[in-house]
Amino acid sequence: MTDYTIRRAQRDDVGAIVQMLADDQLGATRDDPSDLEPYLRAFDKIDADPDQLLVVVVSGGEPVGTLQLTIIPGLARHGALRGQIEAVRVRADHRGSGLGADLMHWAIDESKRRGCALVQLTSDVSRTDAHRFYERLGFTPSHTGFKLKF
Amino acid sequence: MTDYTIRRAQRDDVGAIVQMLADDQLGATRDDPSDLEPYLRAFDKIDADPDQLLVVVVSGGEPVGTLQLTIIPGLARHGALRGQIEAVRVRADHRGSGLGADLMHWAIDESKRRGCALVQLTSDVSRTDAHRFYERLGFTPSHTGFKLKF
Repeated sequence: MTDYTIRRAQRDDVGAIVQMLADDQLGATRDDPSDLEPYLRAFDKIDADPDQLLVVVVSGGEPVGTLQLTIIPGLARHGALRGQIEAVRVRADHRGSGLGADLMHWAIDESKRRGCALVQLTSDVSRTDAHRFYERLGFTPSHTGFKLKF
Repeated sequence: MTDYTIRRAQRDDVGAIVQMLADDQLGATRDDPSDLEPYLRAFDKIDADPDQLLVVVVSGGEPVGTLQLTIIPGLARHGALRGQIEAVRVRADHRGSGLGADLMHWAIDESKRRGCALVQLTSDVSRTDAHRFYERLGFTPSHTGFKLKF
């Protein structure tokens, strides 16, 4: 049994979070922990916004999992809030332990607590294991996610 | 040739926007313009947040198209901002006029202007016409969109 806690990320966690973002088949080409400056600037912006929650799972004093929850207001569905989950990562040596599911349940519960009507996320079509994981948690793959990169 | 302008939505536009949300195969069961109170509360929250932009296309003095753009900070991709587009609607009698494409180009340009590295959106898998529309605009259907409703 693994002992861990889920908490709001602090500035000191940014290096470990970026390491998790980069240690990934898709993220390896996109992120690089050798220069943390742009990441720390982004962290300060996230941390100052009450509708953004960047969280980490800490085990043995180290962040081993992370996700970002964004609360988005909208008119649709009678003016419902929605919780959006981005950048879900669990360090390779902690996968399969139930820690990822606990982290997702935390985000779902926090979204409910803030009055959201739903939680949403997108996942690259190539991440089939992740898709099974989200479906086990009760998510429905009802949408196609489009991106346009500049 | 249709003459129209794109501008930030005002409180007086909320009724027309909700009418567009409800006048839709999927939205008809979810939205109802007969009681605007919850929508006006949501509008006030959106309007007060500098990272939320609810816009309308106005033609002949009436809103005939709408979308919401949300600017989301994150650590991934060297601390990139992303523009997220939600609740895209064009009134039935204005479809096929190029107005929807102009509205989307507005949102893409505004996201660039604010320094975003990408724009993203999700669309119900049943909206195949919309998917072709987004692909013509340059979007890639690279992701699966998951939702969990409460």
